[in-house]
Amino acid sequence: MFDFLKGMINRKGLPPGSVMYVGETVAKKVRIRIMDFDENNFVEKDAQEVEECFPFKDTPSTTWINIDGIHDTGIIEKIGRHFDMHPLILEDMLNTSQRPKLEDFDNYMFIIAKLLSYNEEKEQIESEQISLIMGADCVITFQETEGDVFNVIRDRIRTGKGRVRRMGADYLAYVLLDALVDNYFVVLEKMGEKIEDIEDELIEDPTPDTLRKIHHLKRETVFLRKILWPTRDMISGIERCGSPLIKDTTGIYLRDLYENVIHVIDSIEAVRDISAGMIDMYLSSLSNKLNILMKHLNAIVIAVAIPSFFAGAGGMSEFSQMVGFENWKSAYLLFFVGMVCMGIGTYFLIKRLEKYWK
Amino acid sequence: MFDFLKGMINRKGLPPGSVMYVGETVAKKVRIRIMDFDENNFVEKDAQEVEECFPFKDTPSTTWINIDGIHDTGIIEKIGRHFDMHPLILEDMLNTSQRPKLEDFDNYMFIIAKLLSYNEEKEQIESEQISLIMGADCVITFQETEGDVFNVIRDRIRTGKGRVRRMGADYLAYVLLDALVDNYFVVLEKMGEKIEDIEDELIEDPTPDTLRKIHHLKRETVFLRKILWPTRDMISGIERCGSPLIKDTTGIYLRDLYENVIHVIDSIEAVRDISAGMIDMYLSSLSNKLNILMKHLNAIVIAVAIPSFFAGAGGMSEFSQMVGFENWKSAYLLFFVGMVCMGIGTYFLIKRLEKYWK
Amino acid sequence: MFDFLKGMINRKGLPPGSVMYVGETVAKKVRIRIMDFDENNFVEKDAQEVEECFPFKDTPSTTWINIDGIHDTGIIEKIGRHFDMHPLILEDMLNTSQRPKLEDFDNYMFIIAKLLSYNEEKEQIESEQISLIMGADCVITFQETEGDVFNVIRDRIRTGKGRVRRMGADYLAYVLLDALVDNYFVVLEKMGEKIEDIEDELIEDPTPDTLRKIHHLKRETVFLRKILWPTRDMISGIERCGSPLIKDTTGIYLRDLYENVIHVIDSIEAVRDISAGMIDMYLSSLSNKLNILMKHLNAIVIAVAIPSFFAGAGGMSEFSQMVGFENWKSAYLLFFVGMVCMGIGTYFLIKRLEKYWK
Amino acid sequence: MFDFLKGMINRKGLPPGSVMYVGETVAKKVRIRIMDFDENNFVEKDAQEVEECFPFKDTPSTTWINIDGIHDTGIIEKIGRHFDMHPLILEDMLNTSQRPKLEDFDNYMFIIAKLLSYNEEKEQIESEQISLIMGADCVITFQETEGDVFNVIRDRIRTGKGRVRRMGADYLAYVLLDALVDNYFVVLEKMGEKIEDIEDELIEDPTPDTLRKIHHLKRETVFLRKILWPTRDMISGIERCGSPLIKDTTGIYLRDLYENVIHVIDSIEAVRDISAGMIDMYLSSLSNKLNILMKHLNAIVIAVAIPSFFAGAGGMSEFSQMVGFENWKSAYLLFFVGMVCMGIGTYFLIKRLEKYWK
Amino acid sequence: MFDFLKGMINRKGLPPGSVMYVGETVAKKVRIRIMDFDENNFVEKDAQEVEECFPFKDTPSTTWINIDGIHDTGIIEKIGRHFDMHPLILEDMLNTSQRPKLEDFDNYMFIIAKLLSYNEEKEQIESEQISLIMGADCVITFQETEGDVFNVIRDRIRTGKGRVRRMGADYLAYVLLDALVDNYFVVLEKMGEKIEDIEDELIEDPTPDTLRKIHHLKRETVFLRKILWPTRDMISGIERCGSPLIKDTTGIYLRDLYENVIHVIDSIEAVRDISAGMIDMYLSSLSNKLNILMKHLNAIVIAVAIPSFFAGAGGMSEFSQMVGFENWKSAYLLFFVGMVCMGIGTYFLIKRLEKYWK
Repeated sequence: MFDFLKGMINRKGLPPGSVMYVGETVAKKVRIRIMDFDENNFVEKDAQEVEECFPFKDTPSTTWINIDGIHDTGIIEKIGRHFDMHPLILEDMLNTSQRPKLEDFDNYMFIIAKLLSYNEEKEQIESEQISLIMGADCVITFQETEGDVFNVIRDRIRTGKGRVRRMGADYLAYVLLDALVDNYFVVLEKMGEKIEDIEDELIEDPTPDTLRKIHHLKRETVFLRKILWPTRDMISGIERCGSPLIKDTTGIYLRDLYENVIHVIDSIEAVRDISAGMIDMYLSSLSNKLNILMKHLNAIVIAVAIPSFFAGAGGMSEFSQMVGFENWKSAYLLFFVGMVCMGIGTYFLIKRLEKYWK
Repeated sequence: MFDFLKGMINRKGLPPGSVMYVGETVAKKVRIRIMDFDENNFVEKDAQEVEECFPFKDTPSTTWINIDGIHDTGIIEKIGRHFDMHPLILEDMLNTSQRPKLEDFDNYMFIIAKLLSYNEEKEQIESEQISLIMGADCVITFQETEGDVFNVIRDRIRTGKGRVRRMGADYLAYVLLDALVDNYFVVLEKMGEKIEDIEDELIEDPTPDTLRKIHHLKRETVFLRKILWPTRDMISGIERCGSPLIKDTTGIYLRDLYENVIHVIDSIEAVRDISAGMIDMYLSSLSNKLNILMKHLNAIVIAVAIPSFFAGAGGMSEFSQMVGFENWKSAYLLFFVGMVCMGIGTYFLIKRLEKYWK
Repeated sequence: MFDFLKGMINRKGLPPGSVMYVGETVAKKVRIRIMDFDENNFVEKDAQEVEECFPFKDTPSTTWINIDGIHDTGIIEKIGRHFDMHPLILEDMLNTSQRPKLEDFDNYMFIIAKLLSYNEEKEQIESEQISLIMGADCVITFQETEGDVFNVIRDRIRTGKGRVRRMGADYLAYVLLDALVDNYFVVLEKMGEKIEDIEDELIEDPTPDTLRKIHHLKRETVFLRKILWPTRDMISGIERCGSPLIKDTTGIYLRDLYENVIHVIDSIEAVRDISAGMIDMYLSSLSNKLNILMKHLNAIVIAVAIPSFFAGAGGMSEFSQMVGFENWKSAYLLFFVGMVCMGIGTYFLIKRLEKYWK
Repeated sequence: MFDFLKGMINRKGLPPGSVMYVGETVAKKVRIRIMDFDENNFVEKDAQEVEECFPFKDTPSTTWINIDGIHDTGIIEKIGRHFDMHPLILEDMLNTSQRPKLEDFDNYMFIIAKLLSYNEEKEQIESEQISLIMGADCVITFQETEGDVFNVIRDRIRTGKGRVRRMGADYLAYVLLDALVDNYFVVLEKMGEKIEDIEDELIEDPTPDTLRKIHHLKRETVFLRKILWPTRDMISGIERCGSPLIKDTTGIYLRDLYENVIHVIDSIEAVRDISAGMIDMYLSSLSNKLNILMKHLNAIVIAVAIPSFFAGAGGMSEFSQMVGFENWKSAYLLFFVGMVCMGIGTYFLIKRLEKYWK
Repeated sequence: MFDFLKGMINRKGLPPGSVMYVGETVAKKVRIRIMDFDENNFVEKDAQEVEECFPFKDTPSTTWINIDGIHDTGIIEKIGRHFDMHPLILEDMLNTSQRPKLEDFDNYMFIIAKLLSYNEEKEQIESEQISLIMGADCVITFQETEGDVFNVIRDRIRTGKGRVRRMGADYLAYVLLDALVDNYFVVLEKMGEKIEDIEDELIEDPTPDTLRKIHHLKRETVFLRKILWPTRDMISGIERCGSPLIKDTTGIYLRDLYENVIHVIDSIEAVRDISAGMIDMYLSSLSNKLNILMKHLNAIVIAVAIPSFFAGAGGMSEFSQMVGFENWKSAYLLFFVGMVCMGIGTYFLIKRLEKYWK
């Protein structure tokens, strides 16, 4: 949870704008994929050298350069210099613990977003930083590791399906962000499943482990809120910043995206509310179990004490003598069986009466 | 509760604006009902083919096209194309997990609202998505299933009662939304009844089931808040967006509708507050029961222990010898009765004294 | 608490603006009282027919028409038609479950306010709806039942005391609202008394009934908040709506009234905070009682068990034989007294030691 | 706490602007002190009659009239008439339960502030109302009782130390308010001491009295918030109202004062947070004590029960016979000592083992 | 925690603007370090007398004067007079309990910020006040004690690394503030470690000391919030105040700094949320321990009581006689072993059955 602090501390003391990678995961090789297209044409290539993508900068067609792996600062710096980016942007891009944000420059926009995924093994939500630079007819995306979240968009571009081929760079940026936000719903569904599991446990047999799960769930909402609220601001900022890079026709798509993020936030807040209620349920289940235990203890103490009193108060021999039994053994048995019956009878009688006690 | 996520996940990977139905309920056949009226004339017909409603688009009279069932995407797409709707609208309309919202286009408005109803069988609140498109003299509504919520308005149009026949499309849209909001009060009343039931249980005999009911109630408020707050924004948006489609005379009706929604929201927030208090009552009732149990246990332990001590400390035989009784049997009886009386007396004495303990 | 829903549900399905009474209380006869005055002249009359008040509409002097009882929709409709009121206003006026609100028309203002009173019998706060229509030189008030809240103002008008006779209709409206708000303080004082009672109970001897009272208090704050926050908005709206009906000189009075409402709201929020603290006190008093009980039980178990062990471990006969006592009876007595003393001594010793246990 | 309601209720029914004193404390005689000064001149006098201060109204030098005691409404009315004050101001001034507020008139400003002090005897925070009227070169202050809070400023004026002599009426008003706010820090320090006391108690030995102190502390924060938030608004209002009475050079001082009030508010909010945490600590200390008690009870029950079983199961005589001891008495002793050792050993063994129970 | 009040109280009664030092730490000697540089030139000197730094005021190159130790009010006053500072600034600078704030004058800006550090010995977060005055080409910083937080910046200036040498005074001020904010992340990491420690304790073996740590953590968040929220306002104020002292090119750096502070605040709020959850975990661990204890007690009482009943009800002698054993000793042993087995068996049987009790 507090992993995000690491990056900040490592670069402590460096001058602002220092290009230094702070993340952990190191992809084997930085992979640079270029797609250049307009409504009719389409070029796709895997660049071996970073310089290969420079010529696309000046084509009138829409260019999407995707860089998987940001640990090679040399490549990042070269791109930064060629595309004339502000030094702070390069720093933010490499510092993988940034909050989602939007920085609007005159001729390009810089967006930091988060890709959320659910790690089934560690049973926790993980986030990866996606940086996106959007120029007039060029989008550059930086991913920490090579992932498959954008594959579906690549296919759409290749097949020419949808509006993505003809609507320019801002629409492409929207489509990429939309793919990220769609993933948030997958994470949400995972949380929904967890909630149902926990609620079942709460009803059937709550254990300390159930509380641990609730606490874990709560921490995840804390973690998600830290990502989602700034994401909301970032997306609403794209439309409202009034940049000429955003065409009017893209506005409605951005509003739709904004609605989706709000949708996710609403759900997270709902999970928060529900997890608070679950803690109450857990605590009261403990109290309830204790009450049940005490009721039994109560009944048992009485059920055991009364025959014991009889047994103590005189014992078998006096009893048999008093009743005048001749037969030792049967008297003993009778007394014994009577006491056991009295104990059991008392136990159930007391359990019945307890609810009327005041 | 987390059903709304399903739709979002199913369409993951599709390009924005894809017309795909994500809801569950499939009505048998899409039913298209057309009402065309002005102050003096009135035409009503059930269209067999979607094309039958196209001619009404250009009449100067107010037209209301109601479509029950949105699973037939072909019909939706035809309407969309004919009425020149934005592709995103069609997508939103079919995705039944949308938040209530308003999208204002130049020549029409797109509204998503929710119909709430209380399912007596499942004992839970259910919501259905209603999409509404309002043009200059045309309102198109899309319902997931054929319902009766708008019947009363149909009757009003047929009989010419009220202002609905002469005040145009924006007033018609208001009347339809008003019918939805009126239903919210029915759901609220249901919640009010539940609260009274739970409070009665809390006072009489709270059980773990009572807590489950409180938790369920709390989840319902969470669910309703997610629908009501965006509904509020949507309704206030209709008036404030300054669209020429909304006539000045309709403003006061919209403000009234807005007040009603706030009324519902206030009540939901009140339910939230009250349900929090009920959990406190439940928890303290558990503590209280435990205290009562312990008081009894306390008194019983003493009441049983003291005669047992006497019984143990000497037993019948020594006692009778000491007191000098000749008659074995009556001595035994006397001792026995005395011990039982001492036990019962001690029990009530202790119960009296307990409240003065500190 | 959820009574306010009734009105909303009864009129479900009616067209907006339907004049239908939804309240419960039916006054015997609608009473119409007219006061017409300026600085020098004063006329007062009880109208038998609603038409009697129509001529006063056009007098230049200030007219106050007070209508007690709103169940006779015929009278309301006549007034509505004569004074040219919007149909929605008539509907709102009769629907006694409205939130306090302000509707500003060009030539008149429509205000809904609430009269709060404390019902000593039912021990709960009750609210009555007061509708107020303010024209240029005319104020019409509608009350559900004939009450005495405005009597003091009537007296002031009759005697010519204060500014009310010369400052016109807007000042009159302010004075009437001020009389309502003054009543809120009476209700607040009642709550203050309740809080003191509950706190005394909490310190002396908290019972489940105390918790019930706290819960009731909390519900009353929930109820009052629902009335007071909209009242605040309504009053601040009167000044800020910029209507020409409100003279500049009245502004300071309205601001003062606003301050008073804020004062009441602040106090209600304080009651909320305090009642939350009282629940904590109640819960901890239960825990504390349990601890005290357990301490006693602890001491008693030990105090009883040790002599019982001695009694069991050998009994009287062996003991006396061992000690070598000749005299059976005195040995028995000695042993017996010793055991009882040991028990009591142990009890107090343990109670002393308990606080050092860790 | 709810004392502030009294004033409001007493004047219920009076026309707005009625000059009626509602406070409790009645100073023996109203004391009127006048200070008239500029950079070079200085006049100080105690007025016997209220009329003596009227001539100072028109001097170009700064005049400060301080009135201790506001129960003599005659004096207040005379001043009000001479200085041409609005009737509502006089009412507010005498109603000592007002919220801090600012009323900006064309030629003067009316300020209500609160003097806070800590009553060591009653161990509670008390507030006194200070009304302040600021004209172009005149400040009039009204105090409920004669206090010493402004003495330090009087000294400063007398000695000519500081800017107060040359910077005019608005700076004088600031200095007076600053003296009030400085006192708030004294009250805060008192609360800080209380918190430390309570925390010490919580760590050493929490009792129900500790909870009572926490509750009292919480109520004091509720009380202070009701005073401080409006004070903040009042002070920020002085600068922002744009009155020509406030010179530009005074702005920075007012902002500094505003910062101080925010400082106090921040601290009060911190106290709120901390007191909530202290209740949790108290409740858990109760639970913890109970657990410790139960652990002991647990160990004791076992430690007592096992020897009792041995004692009961056969008793001394059978035991000695079985072991074959010749010597009755030493056998008895051996058995007895063995049992006691077994009890004590079991007790400590169980206490050790308890922490591994699951 | 409430140390910050001291300063405020000491200066109570002094006129505003009094230059009086209120802090505790007194550095041995005030150290004045001057750095004067532009892109090409660089001068560094340690001033013995405060007058040595006056000539640098008028150089066109950027000057940074750092003063370690503010207890020598004479030096502060000389600087104040020479650099023409407002008297309130001097007062605020010396009052080390100020909130972070920004005061914008025409020709200079006054900033109060806090340096946070974690005192490993006292195990608590400490704050030191840093005052910063920024003129057109001059930055003066005042530290309470000589610290090393700015050393890294000094090195950067000396070596000419980074933009700091050529971007002027506003960038220098940003770099200094950035160094402070970088330190906040170190404190945050410390808190993260503490959280992990506490959570480990909560899972393994929660003790009252764990609660004390949680409470301490919560107090630290309270303390940090009081510093961080005003810091946020201060930093956003620098950019938004529109001062000509801030160049456009510095804007993006300030926004980046602002993002970092928000980052810290978000984390603190997350810690708040998590610490609330940890208290719930602690409380429920107590309840859980109690339940486990009671389960054992329950099983033990039964396991001990049943053999005791047998032992009491007849004892060895009757039993052996009844069963007809000839051999006293082996009968005794058999009975004894049987009883112990029955006790242990009952114990485990009951522990098994308990979970099915209802």
